Amino acid sequence: MTPDEAGRYLRAYKEDRLSQEELIKLFQRAPFEDLGFARVDTHRALRKGFPEVVFGQGKTPPQIESIVQKLAEASHAVLVTRVEPEAAADIQSRMPELTYHPLARCLVWQGSTELHMGGKVCVVSAGTSDMPVAEEAAVTAEVMGNHVERIYDVGVAGLHRLLASLERLQQAEVLIVVAGMEGALPSVVAGLVSQPIIAVPTSVGYGASFNGLAALLGMLTSCGSGVTVVNIDNGFGAAFAASQITQLLHPLA
Amino acid sequence: MTPDEAGRYLRAYKEDRLSQEELIKLFQRAPFEDLGFARVDTHRALRKGFPEVVFGQGKTPPQIESIVQKLAEASHAVLVTRVEPEAAADIQSRMPELTYHPLARCLVWQGSTELHMGGKVCVVSAGTSDMPVAEEAAVTAEVMGNHVERIYDVGVAGLHRLLASLERLQQAEVLIVVAGMEGALPSVVAGLVSQPIIAVPTSVGYGASFNGLAALLGMLTSCGSGVTVVNIDNGFGAAFAASQITQLLHPLA
Amino acid sequence: MTPDEAGRYLRAYKEDRLSQEELIKLFQRAPFEDLGFARVDTHRALRKGFPEVVFGQGKTPPQIESIVQKLAEASHAVLVTRVEPEAAADIQSRMPELTYHPLARCLVWQGSTELHMGGKVCVVSAGTSDMPVAEEAAVTAEVMGNHVERIYDVGVAGLHRLLASLERLQQAEVLIVVAGMEGALPSVVAGLVSQPIIAVPTSVGYGASFNGLAALLGMLTSCGSGVTVVNIDNGFGAAFAASQITQLLHPLA
Amino acid sequence: MTPDEAGRYLRAYKEDRLSQEELIKLFQRAPFEDLGFARVDTHRALRKGFPEVVFGQGKTPPQIESIVQKLAEASHAVLVTRVEPEAAADIQSRMPELTYHPLARCLVWQGSTELHMGGKVCVVSAGTSDMPVAEEAAVTAEVMGNHVERIYDVGVAGLHRLLASLERLQQAEVLIVVAGMEGALPSVVAGLVSQPIIAVPTSVGYGASFNGLAALLGMLTSCGSGVTVVNIDNGFGAAFAASQITQLLHPLA
Amino acid sequence: MTPDEAGRYLRAYKEDRLSQEELIKLFQRAPFEDLGFARVDTHRALRKGFPEVVFGQGKTPPQIESIVQKLAEASHAVLVTRVEPEAAADIQSRMPELTYHPLARCLVWQGSTELHMGGKVCVVSAGTSDMPVAEEAAVTAEVMGNHVERIYDVGVAGLHRLLASLERLQQAEVLIVVAGMEGALPSVVAGLVSQPIIAVPTSVGYGASFNGLAALLGMLTSCGSGVTVVNIDNGFGAAFAASQITQLLHPLA
Amino acid sequence: MTPDEAGRYLRAYKEDRLSQEELIKLFQRAPFEDLGFARVDTHRALRKGFPEVVFGQGKTPPQIESIVQKLAEASHAVLVTRVEPEAAADIQSRMPELTYHPLARCLVWQGSTELHMGGKVCVVSAGTSDMPVAEEAAVTAEVMGNHVERIYDVGVAGLHRLLASLERLQQAEVLIVVAGMEGALPSVVAGLVSQPIIAVPTSVGYGASFNGLAALLGMLTSCGSGVTVVNIDNGFGAAFAASQITQLLHPLA
Amino acid sequence: MTPDEAGRYLRAYKEDRLSQEELIKLFQRAPFEDLGFARVDTHRALRKGFPEVVFGQGKTPPQIESIVQKLAEASHAVLVTRVEPEAAADIQSRMPELTYHPLARCLVWQGSTELHMGGKVCVVSAGTSDMPVAEEAAVTAEVMGNHVERIYDVGVAGLHRLLASLERLQQAEVLIVVAGMEGALPSVVAGLVSQPIIAVPTSVGYGASFNGLAALLGMLTSCGSGVTVVNIDNGFGAAFAASQITQLLHPLA
Amino acid sequence: MTPDEAGRYLRAYKEDRLSQEELIKLFQRAPFEDLGFARVDTHRALRKGFPEVVFGQGKTPPQIESIVQKLAEASHAVLVTRVEPEAAADIQSRMPELTYHPLARCLVWQGSTELHMGGKVCVVSAGTSDMPVAEEAAVTAEVMGNHVERIYDVGVAGLHRLLASLERLQQAEVLIVVAGMEGALPSVVAGLVSQPIIAVPTSVGYGASFNGLAALLGMLTSCGSGVTVVNIDNGFGAAFAASQITQLLHPLA
Repeated sequence: MTPDEAGRYLRAYKEDRLSQEELIKLFQRAPFEDLGFARVDTHRALRKGFPEVVFGQGKTPPQIESIVQKLAEASHAVLVTRVEPEAAADIQSRMPELTYHPLARCLVWQGSTELHMGGKVCVVSAGTSDMPVAEEAAVTAEVMGNHVERIYDVGVAGLHRLLASLERLQQAEVLIVVAGMEGALPSVVAGLVSQPIIAVPTSVGYGASFNGLAALLGMLTSCGSGVTVVNIDNGFGAAFAASQITQLLHPLA
Repeated sequence: MTPDEAGRYLRAYKEDRLSQEELIKLFQRAPFEDLGFARVDTHRALRKGFPEVVFGQGKTPPQIESIVQKLAEASHAVLVTRVEPEAAADIQSRMPELTYHPLARCLVWQGSTELHMGGKVCVVSAGTSDMPVAEEAAVTAEVMGNHVERIYDVGVAGLHRLLASLERLQQAEVLIVVAGMEGALPSVVAGLVSQPIIAVPTSVGYGASFNGLAALLGMLTSCGSGVTVVNIDNGFGAAFAASQITQLLHPLA
Repeated sequence: MTPDEAGRYLRAYKEDRLSQEELIKLFQRAPFEDLGFARVDTHRALRKGFPEVVFGQGKTPPQIESIVQKLAEASHAVLVTRVEPEAAADIQSRMPELTYHPLARCLVWQGSTELHMGGKVCVVSAGTSDMPVAEEAAVTAEVMGNHVERIYDVGVAGLHRLLASLERLQQAEVLIVVAGMEGALPSVVAGLVSQPIIAVPTSVGYGASFNGLAALLGMLTSCGSGVTVVNIDNGFGAAFAASQITQLLHPLA
Repeated sequence: MTPDEAGRYLRAYKEDRLSQEELIKLFQRAPFEDLGFARVDTHRALRKGFPEVVFGQGKTPPQIESIVQKLAEASHAVLVTRVEPEAAADIQSRMPELTYHPLARCLVWQGSTELHMGGKVCVVSAGTSDMPVAEEAAVTAEVMGNHVERIYDVGVAGLHRLLASLERLQQAEVLIVVAGMEGALPSVVAGLVSQPIIAVPTSVGYGASFNGLAALLGMLTSCGSGVTVVNIDNGFGAAFAASQITQLLHPLA
Repeated sequence: MTPDEAGRYLRAYKEDRLSQEELIKLFQRAPFEDLGFARVDTHRALRKGFPEVVFGQGKTPPQIESIVQKLAEASHAVLVTRVEPEAAADIQSRMPELTYHPLARCLVWQGSTELHMGGKVCVVSAGTSDMPVAEEAAVTAEVMGNHVERIYDVGVAGLHRLLASLERLQQAEVLIVVAGMEGALPSVVAGLVSQPIIAVPTSVGYGASFNGLAALLGMLTSCGSGVTVVNIDNGFGAAFAASQITQLLHPLA
Repeated sequence: MTPDEAGRYLRAYKEDRLSQEELIKLFQRAPFEDLGFARVDTHRALRKGFPEVVFGQGKTPPQIESIVQKLAEASHAVLVTRVEPEAAADIQSRMPELTYHPLARCLVWQGSTELHMGGKVCVVSAGTSDMPVAEEAAVTAEVMGNHVERIYDVGVAGLHRLLASLERLQQAEVLIVVAGMEGALPSVVAGLVSQPIIAVPTSVGYGASFNGLAALLGMLTSCGSGVTVVNIDNGFGAAFAASQITQLLHPLA
Repeated sequence: MTPDEAGRYLRAYKEDRLSQEELIKLFQRAPFEDLGFARVDTHRALRKGFPEVVFGQGKTPPQIESIVQKLAEASHAVLVTRVEPEAAADIQSRMPELTYHPLARCLVWQGSTELHMGGKVCVVSAGTSDMPVAEEAAVTAEVMGNHVERIYDVGVAGLHRLLASLERLQQAEVLIVVAGMEGALPSVVAGLVSQPIIAVPTSVGYGASFNGLAALLGMLTSCGSGVTVVNIDNGFGAAFAASQITQLLHPLA
Repeated sequence: MTPDEAGRYLRAYKEDRLSQEELIKLFQRAPFEDLGFARVDTHRALRKGFPEVVFGQGKTPPQIESIVQKLAEASHAVLVTRVEPEAAADIQSRMPELTYHPLARCLVWQGSTELHMGGKVCVVSAGTSDMPVAEEAAVTAEVMGNHVERIYDVGVAGLHRLLASLERLQQAEVLIVVAGMEGALPSVVAGLVSQPIIAVPTSVGYGASFNGLAALLGMLTSCGSGVTVVNIDNGFGAAFAASQITQLLHPLA
């Protein structure tokens, strides 16, 4: 039932061509499915200002291309995650307006009105091999309008490097802490700042790291101090959650 | 090295009784351990306004009692989690100023200056058996100065109950979503609101729920939409993280 | 918005005291939450004829008692699962109209109009220790109006006992097959009948049965032949699913 | 012992060339193995009307080819699952009478008498990446004579899309619900319909989805509402089980 | 169909009151279920000479009592495993003819004709805490007519004790090797003897022994050298399997 | 200390050039390491008559070649397991005296004196995909001098095929039962024969079969009936263990 | 063969009553088992100076008592681990010479000559609930003759407490680091000292700590920096290993 | 704050251009981050004499090349682990001064002053397939200045080979024991020597070895005897830990 139809039915009712009972029955029969005005496409409504996001893994360049083209029509930015360099180059050869972030493996289309929400997100990572996940988080947070401070390679086995960044850590509104192996970094950072921390376990490591399970469990069991956790390697998800927080602080007009 | 000692060394240096080289060496020898002014007890400093928290499980009533007495001297509130009713009654018989929340299994000591930070936290839970964890989160969030909206028993198998609470869901600043079994509730709530969601898996369920593992994995794999997760049954941790967010919005003067 | 309110608004609209635009806006504002006629309490509506079910585990006798009393007012039958004998005796001392099935650990309140849907369900179980789960399924299926054929103690290591029941197996409309240990029985039964089979792994066994995991995995990996599986020890769930099938064949007038 | 031999022995007995005792002993010696008339090839007998099914994975095109040719002689349809496009193209180049469903990765040979049993199966899936499994289920159900309604891309994080399909959901006789990640869709659908639901976890997802384990556990722990589950990615098995149910409703003459 | 009935049918056929076709149809209709002479209660037939075995765990003394009494009528020995001392004492107070082996937790009823098959079984165990499982194996093997050689407390960390028993190890026909913790003993024994070795992991250990999982995996991955494995703590099963081997060597007349 | 040296020392002692005390000390110092006569290369000694075995996986053709050549000098047969067809063809081009069994992936060198121990081993397998493992077991058992009876494709979902082989099953001395998926076949076979059964889980299956874990757990939890288990896919190990049993029955002169 | 027998044989040989060949054969026949002088009870010999250790868990007070009495005759100290307070009190009532360490749950018998090896072991622990395991390590290390420095309650979420102990950490010869939850402490300590670190995961924690699994995996995946790990809660094992290292530095005369 | 700046501030203070209070405040403001003299780069300071180590896996030859070049400037040796032969050859073509150890997959750059610390490390391994991990340990230990004794292929199923090496085992200061499959070797070695043993589980094995999990659990549960464990396949980590021990015994001047 489109709003037009609803309007027609209401008029018919007003003009006594339709009884009140019949009108109610008509509405009842299609309560959710196409009641039109009663139906809220919550995501689109709620996440105003957020870019459209495409999970690139497992999609062919032509598939990505056509999805991006369609989404670009109706939004201010499109972010494609998990795109390998070859696929990115292939797509860019036909869509040169896209920007590729090779470390983050993200492809970004930015409309004319770039978003500057003003959030302050700090992305901290433990080792060099955690950087792709950290960069996925950083690029995502930037596309979502945040200023991003990167503090990389500050693993817990070399505390001095982490402590040397104390001030930058404390200036963020939200921190995303990325770590593989034993995933101890969020616990340590949680002792140094009072802001919300979103921890991202990575699948970096071998043997008993069991593809990120060790880091995941480590981060979950450290939650007493207020750390929350996202899925293994989910840099995007962490940045999305962080942006939900910064949006609270910097609401879009 | 106490500040006094530091002062003495500096004066000695000024009066040429100590060379600059010797002074620096003295500081170097004790870089972290007792440099006094260089040492920051970060937790106490950072979490100003937060109550002191005691994990009650595994502690005897006398142990809890003496810890609470000591902490109450220097803070505005003390929260003891995981206290069984018998233990609570025993403690209250000697410390009648404590309040016990039986469902949440929390014991609270509130100083004269109650905190009203003004945060708005909504605690949502799926089933009646998830309520102890939900209440631990709710009581914690209240002690931390938030107004808490409780929406309980709105599991995903009865969507109408959840949808009927849509407006209350959308008015929160942060949502804590508690669910056992398959842990699907956070995914559904994430589609209805744009605020940060902290998911708490509970150990409720039997068989293939594997003491909360099913709910935990379910919540983690739903993180694409911005849900972050804390440890199984960790209602306290979720409320702590939620309060870190509301504190950003309502900074204490 | 109750139907009454909706009626009032519609009349106001008809009498031009409310514009069409305002009317639509009123409906939009409360799309799901209390639109009254647009809101369907799906469970109650859909499962007409089904008894009310209470999961007894973890509830005290008084809690069970008051829930049963409340539910009995508005339904034809109430089934309480997982009730220990002592609790049952305690409840029955005050509510002698309840029937207790000790092996199934089920407490049943039956209204005056007993349901006879006419479905034919066969419950098959492998060992004597699987019987509590099998009986939970059997009693549930009976309360839901099915005729139940019990074939117990027909484990795969003694095929002759199973084969001797071939005809009874083949006369069922749906089969519930309950087995612990290696959970092989459903695979074997699936080779003997063409009807739907719902497999219930039990936590019976020790060591490498890992509380029913071995049986669960065994049953899942046998699904090629059309077996579907419910949670470990979930006799109730299997009977519920079986009754959904028999209801298709014997629709209530 | 072939039926012919059995006949000879019986005649010999009748003509007194064989005593009753000797005859019984002859039968006893070969009770199961080749008693001929006493042996029932249950599968073939029971599943009359069902197509022959070949699990294509791990088989070479020539192997598939020769199996299909042999099976096609004695059945009305042959379904080969898990066939990659290259293999399918290779086989079709020599057997053009086969139809290939690329998304479902199914190869179908249909005899002259197509089966129209009349069952109504609805296949629901959560995300686009779940579609191969959903299509395997849909194609299988069609080959087994059902009308199939496809409702794809209705994940729980966007409830309005699911609710918009409510009527189509409720018109099915059986529903197959396919979901990866947290596997929450079956729980939600179970709250909207009263028909049997067969849930298929998919291996879609990464990190803590552990190749479908998260979805599997999620679906199993949701079984209280009558959902039954098949193996991870087992679209075929779900459709087979669904067809066993629709066959009960639409028995072949 | 009992043999008597079969006889009647055959006579009716012989006397031409029943056609050959009708006779065959009669047999076909009841192929497995009660064809009488065609049905073999394989277990009873095959395991002639073996005692009847009752799994005592989870059974009440009266239940055990009545089962033993019934089984004792038709067999030469009855073995009840997993009986706690209190239960055993209770049963023995009424059935003084039973013998209780406290370490093995086995209750044995021995008929007048004790079995002396003559098999030589050696039971080897690693630590003192493995002894209950080892004794369950030893007592079972004895009841099954074997001579049992016990070599206990010969863990791999003290090789000299094991090596000192080399000759006794090599004289056995079959060896049962019981070990918890890392389960290394079977691998070592396999290097010293050429006879079949049946390994029994025990749930002894803590932490990473995960209730016997470490020992189980250790024993399975050592199988290259011909070790076979039974379930965790399954001393009975190992002795049963060992007796199947010694029975091959010492067939009962 | 070589036997020669030992002899020299003994003579020195006899000729009083060495005291008894010194002699004993000499022996003590090198108790195990090179006492020569006191050291038993147990494997070689014990497994007289057994072929030399090489685990081919992960070895290059030249490596296999040189190992086989060396071993062939001192033994009557050499068995190389897990050799891919290409590697086998490469090796055979230079060593045409080797026989390759493609399904079993085994390469065999047979000396002039072929072993005919006379053991009777029956290899049973559930599905066609289990055949490589079954054949590895069969070829191994043959090389070890047994007569092997193969009964393949007799899964539990089609009991009649298994029952039709009852007599051949019962004539074996030892049975090796190979099954993937739910691994139910050994349990069923154990109900039909009284001989030792060695179960081999295979990694065949997908999803919840978890690379053979489901079959492994299923077989272990079925051990009550005397089934013993080897590692996943370990056809060789099963045949080795089976041959240890048949060797007891047919000792080599 | 006892040394006496060996002596007799050697004399017989010397006196030509026994040929050299016969003598060698006699030795060969009993190579390991009772060659007397060739057999080394390695443990006793090697671990000179170490106390005798009894694992108290699962043993009754009388059993512990009699074992201690026996061991005390031949050693300088006896350590019983895992003794509950009640059992300890019971034993001490009869053996007042024993000392009980309630937090460590250790019972110690000390002979007249106390061992002072001089090793310097530092035991570090993260939380108050880790203290029982830490104390088991500390008491064990003391009984083995080490000086023990305890640094407790220095979890990674409060770095300043750990850093304040830097000098004491760096003065140890070996460090034992005990932590539950996420087990991050060893990684951090490894960045501050260059001495060997033995990490002990504890079963402290709930939910996703999975009884110490999270800490165990975290510690194992941190091993790149030279941390080695013992079993969950194995304070004794860590101290034993630490003492093996300090013994290298302070060899007993 | 650089030491220079610190000096300037101190002089300013001395010359009364800066009050003592201001000076202290300046230090306080930058407590950890750049206090210069107060900050200790612990790793570099502590591990004097140790080579720089690069984890080669996942790095391209050019990346490795540039890292090695940079590190070589400031250290006496550089060790790159996990380098495949092709990558090594590529790097060596441009940096011929590097040595490649193909079995250990290690690339070593040795400065002019080779380190000879004098530690005695014994590397023991169970099977030929464990050799790459064993060699990674051996090469690492050598680069760290130890003399390394290799005892390979001494699995527990052939004890005589291990016992024949007893003396060499006992002469080491530290032992590294490498084993896959059931990981039993460290337990056995622990019974033969009194020195510290570091166990390395390898991912060698198939089926129930679960990529090294079986060996890992086996080694952890054997820790009672003083064995400590590193991550699966972590030969480098074991050698690093071993060198920390030998450095205690052979301190660098």
